[in-house]
Amino acid sequence: MTHIAPGFEAVSERLAAFTQADPSYSAQVCALRHGRTLIDLAMGPRLAVDSLIGVFSSSKGVAAMCTALLIESGDLDLDAPFARYWPAFAAADKAEVTVRTALSHRAGLPVIAGGFTSEDLEEHDELAARLAAARPLWVPGTSHGYHGITIGIIISELIRRITGATFRDFYKERLQTPFGIDFHFGVDDKVLPRVVDTLPQLPRNEEEVRILAAAGTEPFHLLNMVVNVDGFPPFAEQANNPVIRRSGPAAIGGVGNARSLAHLYSHCLQSADGPEPLAPKALGVMSQVHSSGTDLVLGIHNRFGIIFETSDARLDFGSPWAFGHDGGGGSIGFADPATGLAFGYTTGRMPIPGGADPRGLELARVIRNRIRSMR
Amino acid sequence: MTHIAPGFEAVSERLAAFTQADPSYSAQVCALRHGRTLIDLAMGPRLAVDSLIGVFSSSKGVAAMCTALLIESGDLDLDAPFARYWPAFAAADKAEVTVRTALSHRAGLPVIAGGFTSEDLEEHDELAARLAAARPLWVPGTSHGYHGITIGIIISELIRRITGATFRDFYKERLQTPFGIDFHFGVDDKVLPRVVDTLPQLPRNEEEVRILAAAGTEPFHLLNMVVNVDGFPPFAEQANNPVIRRSGPAAIGGVGNARSLAHLYSHCLQSADGPEPLAPKALGVMSQVHSSGTDLVLGIHNRFGIIFETSDARLDFGSPWAFGHDGGGGSIGFADPATGLAFGYTTGRMPIPGGADPRGLELARVIRNRIRSMR
Amino acid sequence: MTHIAPGFEAVSERLAAFTQADPSYSAQVCALRHGRTLIDLAMGPRLAVDSLIGVFSSSKGVAAMCTALLIESGDLDLDAPFARYWPAFAAADKAEVTVRTALSHRAGLPVIAGGFTSEDLEEHDELAARLAAARPLWVPGTSHGYHGITIGIIISELIRRITGATFRDFYKERLQTPFGIDFHFGVDDKVLPRVVDTLPQLPRNEEEVRILAAAGTEPFHLLNMVVNVDGFPPFAEQANNPVIRRSGPAAIGGVGNARSLAHLYSHCLQSADGPEPLAPKALGVMSQVHSSGTDLVLGIHNRFGIIFETSDARLDFGSPWAFGHDGGGGSIGFADPATGLAFGYTTGRMPIPGGADPRGLELARVIRNRIRSMR
Repeated sequence: MTHIAPGFEAVSERLAAFTQADPSYSAQVCALRHGRTLIDLAMGPRLAVDSLIGVFSSSKGVAAMCTALLIESGDLDLDAPFARYWPAFAAADKAEVTVRTALSHRAGLPVIAGGFTSEDLEEHDELAARLAAARPLWVPGTSHGYHGITIGIIISELIRRITGATFRDFYKERLQTPFGIDFHFGVDDKVLPRVVDTLPQLPRNEEEVRILAAAGTEPFHLLNMVVNVDGFPPFAEQANNPVIRRSGPAAIGGVGNARSLAHLYSHCLQSADGPEPLAPKALGVMSQVHSSGTDLVLGIHNRFGIIFETSDARLDFGSPWAFGHDGGGGSIGFADPATGLAFGYTTGRMPIPGGADPRGLELARVIRNRIRSMR
Repeated sequence: MTHIAPGFEAVSERLAAFTQADPSYSAQVCALRHGRTLIDLAMGPRLAVDSLIGVFSSSKGVAAMCTALLIESGDLDLDAPFARYWPAFAAADKAEVTVRTALSHRAGLPVIAGGFTSEDLEEHDELAARLAAARPLWVPGTSHGYHGITIGIIISELIRRITGATFRDFYKERLQTPFGIDFHFGVDDKVLPRVVDTLPQLPRNEEEVRILAAAGTEPFHLLNMVVNVDGFPPFAEQANNPVIRRSGPAAIGGVGNARSLAHLYSHCLQSADGPEPLAPKALGVMSQVHSSGTDLVLGIHNRFGIIFETSDARLDFGSPWAFGHDGGGGSIGFADPATGLAFGYTTGRMPIPGGADPRGLELARVIRNRIRSMR
Repeated sequence: MTHIAPGFEAVSERLAAFTQADPSYSAQVCALRHGRTLIDLAMGPRLAVDSLIGVFSSSKGVAAMCTALLIESGDLDLDAPFARYWPAFAAADKAEVTVRTALSHRAGLPVIAGGFTSEDLEEHDELAARLAAARPLWVPGTSHGYHGITIGIIISELIRRITGATFRDFYKERLQTPFGIDFHFGVDDKVLPRVVDTLPQLPRNEEEVRILAAAGTEPFHLLNMVVNVDGFPPFAEQANNPVIRRSGPAAIGGVGNARSLAHLYSHCLQSADGPEPLAPKALGVMSQVHSSGTDLVLGIHNRFGIIFETSDARLDFGSPWAFGHDGGGGSIGFADPATGLAFGYTTGRMPIPGGADPRGLELARVIRNRIRSMR
């Protein structure tokens, strides 16, 4: 089941070194190049190569692929007013906000005044109506800030209004089933037993103790309002929350593994002798940086294309042409057209702070070094 | 005269702790919620609850409320070219610069080449003509940088050209008199004896010595050109400068106290059973972030709506919906629609660096914690 | 040959102090005010006042002056689509990208996928065609990132398409010959013997060792793709590379000295009794900040006008009205309309990190202090 292509033994060795340094560490890593598997491994006590785990915001990368299909077909025009597809969205001076703005974390709607619960998110319709009516926190298009949960509402509503299908059904019909991908939005009773819980954050040193203590101390602070909105499960519990797992919201509800992430991203690249890649024109546009600089919500420097994240100092996907997404629990998925590399990674315990596990990014660097030395 | 609502004793205790730690510390703090007073206190040797003190740039928040009245009435269109109201402003490629750009610190006019004196500011007309003729330092609308003094010229000229009244008279007629507010632009002989001087900055540790020494060493540096322009009174002396005090320029000339700031901001919020709030539609727009990221003048990250400041890492007003302004002498004023809180604070000595006294922000946090625990 | 105007002895003393602290240090410094020479000096074992040395990106300031001539004459319209002048540039959704965007490091084209060699740069036409066809890394106009080499391709193509002349010939005919400037794009056998090589970077402490080691470790990283593109001579060797020296590309190929830089910039300013300055309207526009904030390529905060750099925390040119450019080898050239100062500086060894030598900026500060004290 596992696979190490000749010349890529260094990846396995690095992964083994991580498990030696921290016996509680579990991880999956999978990489394909031009459609061929370079690495497909799992190590540690809690994850096998075919285990499933909640990938938090790495879900957004998969939601981006769904959106790409509508852009490629012409059903969705990035430069159209968002309200063309969702008329109620025109409220509060948002009539001219474009789809491009709404899908690049620039709409000023990272929170919904009054907060919401995971049940609200499952119900969707009332929450979507509240989002459509809201006045943006900033003038849309002038800045960006991570729409950690609300971008999923925006994507889902767009897909439903264009195709009539729910996000979950659209994904299943257009990506999961045709490509045979073991990645799920909405886990049913058959899949549930294979899902491994994400362990909570565990500080390993004083710096991590400090970071954890600082998070969430001011409930009215913007970041905390977005990540830990009133009534919503705390960040650390979202991936294991049964409502989230059952309903599979587009922004954070995906359950999969390194292999399924890598395979999904591999479908976004030209393979050596395989089929045409998914939505190449749309992905060319969506992987261009649309938002960069200081994120108004997260307070860090980051970069977004359309839904996708692109390489930055924290999130080294390789080349500046790469696109993907990381998740709060440490997972990573990306494709890099410059090297033909598709990559997936998960780990069993949420890092501090949340987001791409630096060990996963290090494994991607080892793979790139091997590719380079073999040219 | 002072007031502590039941449950808010912790605010008074924290204030007392500050005075114990620094016997020279004086401060006023006042907070209202839904129009009802929670706290109205003063402590320390130099300030009583009804003392008046120069509030430096907290004046801009009050100038913003005046501007809100013109926006609400439709007399001022944020998206109109500024030159519609002030034709001379069209010089130097500024014909298409909008009111929105000019009022969100984005016009590129933080300085006037050649500098000016406080007398120039009092005379206004010649200085306004020089500002209107100037070529912006940056392409208007592409970036922002604090227009510490010039935004007041811009506001005053706008009010005068729309209403025929000076800023000072407009404020008095539309806010001060009808609401009975003890906050003054232009201090007359009757009010003057109640005004307490702001004491100069006094470093309390090596870090503060270093910050003070670094400020103002390069007169041609952008920040120093704006804050300490040639001929203009040094930053630390502006609040006590008799010309400023007498003429009351909109940007920095306000004289008031915590109580008057809190009451002004309370009029911006829906009260429990009181009158309609001031200009609710205009304030909804003005409190949206228009400018964020690195300030080209101050070199720090900050956020501005229309004239107002909004919450950021340095300036925690509570929720992302809050709006207000702080002043170089340490004063703070804001309203937060998410909690219904209106807040005012002053202190007797300018902090290092200038701007919102962290002790004032801490008192606001104590109040928010009390509100939350009482829900 | 050397010159120290009365009252500016402190500049020579500071320069002497630098050579005492580091006996291997060589430098040229030249400053003019209102067209009159204040300082024209060289010190150290390797540079005389009339030595020539590659100035790396300080070349861009000279290329900017060439561009200014076309803007002033109306032959080049900053707000026209770039594709009006270069139709092939319309590919990949770039039809509406303006000249202003392309010349302010905002076009999203800092790299060309697949890399290039210095020979490719010399040939120009094929490389220009690849650039014109490329999809930008970011949405043009939304962000900026240093187009370290490609901005020269953009400038050269613009000049050739408008005037029919190569950049090199245009510069020679319009600036070098009429003003008698000892600054060369493309060094012939007659000039070559006067050219001094730039010495490689030599770390003097642990911090510099660390900076050098960190640079260039990840070939797919954006900065390294731009500065050390595949096949292109490493940053440290560009100035001495014979192909670059012979072909003189606009972005990095200039060979000159402090005196020629200062004289070129002096022609951009109004002199006391000399001729009209070069392109005053165009330079007024080009020196306005067009791009500021975090540079997507360099990862630092910087500011650009049209081609020119403007003053920022790293690059203190004096007033916010100043404009110029620094070079990787440590050279500096700028003009400051606020003080009438034109300044040039070179040094014999590339600093760590590359860019304006802090000692050169310090000499400029000493000059400004002297000017101020003599008023």
